[in-house]
Amino acid sequence: MTAGAEAGDELLGRVFLARVIEPGDEVAGRWVRERGVTAVVRRLRQGGEPLPGASGVRWAGLVERARRTVPERDLAAAAEAGARFVGPGDAEWPGQLDDLGDARPLGLWVRGRAGLRMWALRSVAVVGARACTAYGTHVAATLAAGLAERGWVVVSGGAYGIDGAAHRGALAARGATVAVLACGVDRPYPRGHAALIGRIAEQGLVVGELPPGDHPTPTRFILRNRVIAALTRGTVVVEAACRSGSLSTARAAQRLGRITMGVPGPVTSGLSAGVHELLRGEAALVTDAAEVVELVGDIGDLAPARRGPVFPRDLLEPGARAVLAALPGDRAAPAEEIALGARTTRDEAIARLYELRALGYVERHGDGWKLTRQAVMSVREGRGPC
Amino acid sequence: MTAGAEAGDELLGRVFLARVIEPGDEVAGRWVRERGVTAVVRRLRQGGEPLPGASGVRWAGLVERARRTVPERDLAAAAEAGARFVGPGDAEWPGQLDDLGDARPLGLWVRGRAGLRMWALRSVAVVGARACTAYGTHVAATLAAGLAERGWVVVSGGAYGIDGAAHRGALAARGATVAVLACGVDRPYPRGHAALIGRIAEQGLVVGELPPGDHPTPTRFILRNRVIAALTRGTVVVEAACRSGSLSTARAAQRLGRITMGVPGPVTSGLSAGVHELLRGEAALVTDAAEVVELVGDIGDLAPARRGPVFPRDLLEPGARAVLAALPGDRAAPAEEIALGARTTRDEAIARLYELRALGYVERHGDGWKLTRQAVMSVREGRGPC
Repeated sequence: MTAGAEAGDELLGRVFLARVIEPGDEVAGRWVRERGVTAVVRRLRQGGEPLPGASGVRWAGLVERARRTVPERDLAAAAEAGARFVGPGDAEWPGQLDDLGDARPLGLWVRGRAGLRMWALRSVAVVGARACTAYGTHVAATLAAGLAERGWVVVSGGAYGIDGAAHRGALAARGATVAVLACGVDRPYPRGHAALIGRIAEQGLVVGELPPGDHPTPTRFILRNRVIAALTRGTVVVEAACRSGSLSTARAAQRLGRITMGVPGPVTSGLSAGVHELLRGEAALVTDAAEVVELVGDIGDLAPARRGPVFPRDLLEPGARAVLAALPGDRAAPAEEIALGARTTRDEAIARLYELRALGYVERHGDGWKLTRQAVMSVREGRGPC
Repeated sequence: MTAGAEAGDELLGRVFLARVIEPGDEVAGRWVRERGVTAVVRRLRQGGEPLPGASGVRWAGLVERARRTVPERDLAAAAEAGARFVGPGDAEWPGQLDDLGDARPLGLWVRGRAGLRMWALRSVAVVGARACTAYGTHVAATLAAGLAERGWVVVSGGAYGIDGAAHRGALAARGATVAVLACGVDRPYPRGHAALIGRIAEQGLVVGELPPGDHPTPTRFILRNRVIAALTRGTVVVEAACRSGSLSTARAAQRLGRITMGVPGPVTSGLSAGVHELLRGEAALVTDAAEVVELVGDIGDLAPARRGPVFPRDLLEPGARAVLAALPGDRAAPAEEIALGARTTRDEAIARLYELRALGYVERHGDGWKLTRQAVMSVREGRGPC
């Protein structure tokens, strides 16, 4: 068997497991870590004795699901919805998800043109209550727009209320946003956000652990939150009642050593009570995007010229490198001109430009794009923008 | 000269100095500390060479003020307004003011029946903007009422806005409140709060450094704030714009090692921006009276029976001891009955009962008063309520 075929087996095996095993199952995660993907797939297909840690009943359920699983069908359904499967080891895999240990997703289904790995490097989660107040909507949208304008990627859960306001705020600022769903990326939930999630897939990324066609459940929402927390450099909770699910994202972020932030509100509002509880603990109080960036922004920040390395130019994908090379050194250029220079389409060039922006290489300038000061300096010095 | 005459000289000397020297003058504070009150009074009356640290012009100004100062006149004016003068060394002097070092007040003018020293032991400052919002008024009043109901004394500056709401909240809960003014206690400022400050003098205490008849100035407001900060166990800022004067109280509290707290509000409100700034620093976020008490309440808290000593019974003033002795051990009694038992007036008994409540000895019970569980236990064990 060639190395390519092995990688193909591994991918297909992960697609298979992502259908059979529920998100966040640490027992199954240990099987995969200790035995490898293909061995676990084989055991599940064979049936027989349970693997360690699974009861007979649970094992039988997994084997039954395995019996009905055809990974090629999931890949085909995903392809039809414009989604790809990204697993650990893939170039697009966001390495910080490994912090989840055995609860690490088996893989992620991704819709959208941008590269998830690079976007995640410079992302912040903005989450909160579904039944939020007008104040919460306003603050979430303003905060997300401010983050987007500063070149940060806004990650949220695509839900009604704060999540939706955060996505919309980022989109309205022509910024980058990622929706992490608790269902198949081909069947957006909630249904009322189908159009919004469609726009996110166009301009940003729609991501999820669950295979095509799968529905959300309360448990899946909570487990989805760990992915939002792990993917991002920090989580901001905008409004949350005392037992709000969005607090689980904040708690997961805290456990993972991510920066946890909260936006205060009136103490007379029950929808700020959960946030205030967070703020009385470890979370940092933030009132605007600048304060969030101050806390999370220790890599790849655009403004200061004396920053540490952002992301080595050598590690950029060839497509991104071509686009970077096509940018003039002394002025801004429209996307069309850059696409022409990089021998690619305008849409592809724009997707790469957003990635490069997330990494601090380029910035928007009116309707065009130009190299950041750091990038110009690094070109002169023959190294990355640092 | 007898010891009594000397104490009288010291008192008269301090009344004299409180008229000649502006609040918070650390140079003059050093003179008093190093040379004693009477020596400094003598030098100011004599004129001649300036004391160290004073320019010729400044010294001449002080000498001129000294020439016009008749302390007996201030004492008479104060007495007419129902005010007494309390200096360091007096039984009623709040020892924690000594934390101000050479900026310690030379003395305080006090209107009201309660003992300042004991009240201050169990007091919290609630301060904030004058031009506050309806949210701020509501929160300040609710917080102050909650503190008063828990037996805490609410200290504020008697100003419009948050200060007034805090005093009113405490009064409405039939609680104890202290207004610290930046002017003579006989001429309440602002004029629009004359009735409120009158009620505070009736039910609580009105306190100030400035001699009878003196007006407030911007500097005097700021210097008054250090007294509020030093007098109390902690300062809560309810609403404050970014350069609000009430933040100086919080900063003074921080410098003095007092607990500094802030009530969050909408991030869209400029009147919460100063508080949020505080909360992003050292200050603790609080949303209600219970949370404030949790932070400041490590002495004299009523609820837990296993607390450390509150205030030794032996150190109670004779009047308070008599009232304490008049309380039945097994039931609540109306103030009239207690006054009768203590051979005093009802008003006097009520004033003492509030003091005793501040110290954790008694609590309100419907319209009457009863010993706290701690006090009952301590009576049985023959010691203070601890």
